[in-house]
Amino acid sequence: MAPLKLYGMVGSTNTLRVAVALNELGLDYEFVSVPLTTGAHKKPEYLAINPFGHLPSLEDGDLKLFESRAINKYLANHYKGSGPDLLRSGVKAESAKVEVWLEIESQEFNPPASSIVYNVLIKRLLSGGSPDEDVVKAQEVKLSHVLDIYEKQLAETKYLAGDEFTLADLNHLPYLYGLSKTANAGLLTSRPHVSAWWESISARPSWKKAIAGNPY
Amino acid sequence: MAPLKLYGMVGSTNTLRVAVALNELGLDYEFVSVPLTTGAHKKPEYLAINPFGHLPSLEDGDLKLFESRAINKYLANHYKGSGPDLLRSGVKAESAKVEVWLEIESQEFNPPASSIVYNVLIKRLLSGGSPDEDVVKAQEVKLSHVLDIYEKQLAETKYLAGDEFTLADLNHLPYLYGLSKTANAGLLTSRPHVSAWWESISARPSWKKAIAGNPY
Ligand SMILES: N[C@@H](CCC(=O)N[C@@H](CS)C(=O)NCC(=O)O)C(=O)O
Ligand SMILES: N[C@@H](CCC(=O)N[C@@H](CS)C(=O)NCC(=O)O)C(=O)O
Repeated sequence: MAPLKLYGMVGSTNTLRVAVALNELGLDYEFVSVPLTTGAHKKPEYLAINPFGHLPSLEDGDLKLFESRAINKYLANHYKGSGPDLLRSGVKAESAKVEVWLEIESQEFNPPASSIVYNVLIKRLLSGGSPDEDVVKAQEVKLSHVLDIYEKQLAETKYLAGDEFTLADLNHLPYLYGLSKTANAGLLTSRPHVSAWWESISARPSWKKAIAGNPY
Repeated sequence: MAPLKLYGMVGSTNTLRVAVALNELGLDYEFVSVPLTTGAHKKPEYLAINPFGHLPSLEDGDLKLFESRAINKYLANHYKGSGPDLLRSGVKAESAKVEVWLEIESQEFNPPASSIVYNVLIKRLLSGGSPDEDVVKAQEVKLSHVLDIYEKQLAETKYLAGDEFTLADLNHLPYLYGLSKTANAGLLTSRPHVSAWWESISARPSWKKAIAGNPY
């Protein structure tokens, strides 16, 4: 069997989302570096894998996949034998809650969280650019409201979709990590259940392995 | 068995996304109106179903679900016996492509398409407001680039994820429909394969039924 190939960049949040899923499922993979800084992601060879020219992409034999959340769904579905059942696929009510929280991550958490982390952390690393303070302030308000709802959920269940760790928790790791490295970490630490959840999921060996050597 | 209950509003794009999935799977449901115009979506009774206070939500017996794409995943997974297999779940490569195109809809198509439709169509209906022209222009550029990639894909396969209609096509219907009703319809009609795809998926009885009585 040809090994799985992860195309991405060290420090790329969306690449880390897939790396931690691969680790969680105990899957070996080859890492292929596509440095944004040289424009490698807009060259024909890479566009043949991902026509949108974003990182990451995954090759599994002949299959060429992209969009970090789609890749993680694929991995969780097709390699569930190798690790925990990250989608709780056997249990109707639980698997439905996993779908709901996967979408909350994508639609509610990600837009403000990624905007803050990009502005206050990534921009500087990529180009030395400084944050757009108005954007950051507006997104803080949005994220705060979203995390209030998380706080209520996490007062009732250990993880977002119930008492088991699932892909819905995992997909949050890169931007929670980003936030934890900024002056906005208080958005997490000021909420006791959100804070305990973040401590617990970021202590997983799969995540520790994913961020070993991360530049921030 | 208690009937499925869809909480939403006539004319709400995200409600239509779930309505067409219910129809496609041949599922009967009760429609419960939650008018945004009266603020019903921010009252405690509705927040008990969906703490984010957005439309739509779905009740299936004791299960309370929200986020239109999560609801559709749930329906496609748990009611696949009633209609076509919208996730192509039996076929590894196809189901992986469905996941990828579901994410492209959510991450690449939806942000510019929903922003344009909201500005030029929905805003006026809800509050008589007028579009923010700068936002519309910027989002047209983004959507144009995204639809160029769709055009290439649809020159190769009849539907986005292959030669069968899937949930990835279905989830696009509400905002394709919205676009088709605006001065931005040229974004679709100028691209022959995108145009043929839109004609084909919007001719499905499930969609005709969903938009019967739609206000725009
Ligand atoms: N929705 C995509 C987003 C991918 C994305 O935006 N990746 C960033 C790197 S973390 C990127 O490629 N940025 C460069 C660009 O878009 O040109 C995913 O989840 O994979
Ligand atoms: N990501 C959500 C978006 C839901 C959404 O924004 N719905 C609109 C109606 S189409 C809404 O509830 N707007 C009022 C509000 O958010 O306050 C979904 O797909 O269900």
